[in-house]
Amino acid sequence: MKDARLVAFGQKVREIRKSKGLSQEALADIAGVDRSYMGHIERGEKNITLTKIYQIAEALNIDASELLEC
Amino acid sequence: MKDARLVAFGQKVREIRKSKGLSQEALADIAGVDRSYMGHIERGEKNITLTKIYQIAEALNIDASELLEC
Repeated sequence: MKDARLVAFGQKVREIRKSKGLSQEALADIAGVDRSYMGHIERGEKNITLTKIYQIAEALNIDASELLEC
Repeated sequence: MKDARLVAFGQKVREIRKSKGLSQEALADIAGVDRSYMGHIERGEKNITLTKIYQIAEALNIDASELLEC
């Protein structure tokens, strides 16, 4: 069973990524994470680590805290 | 070598924990994480996962996003 908080986090990543006009693959490449891993993250299927949260936030050009806002 | 962002995160946890008058052990117990793990987190020695970030935020009665604010 998925963790609702990880699902919400993944949705937030997806929402901001789309608002920036980035494909999932492009974001993965900029952030330096595996493309399939990015898919898992956006679906809330992986318990992401803090360093990867920072990598994704930097790639999106936002503060990491924004990714955890409701 | 320690990751400066993990160190900053750990300092933030420690700062908020102390402002709430909680010992490291008490916070670990409330958050449901190992006491020695909490020490590693506050020293920036562990790459914490998102679910544990949420557990610590809940134990501190704050939004998880606050823990990532500079």
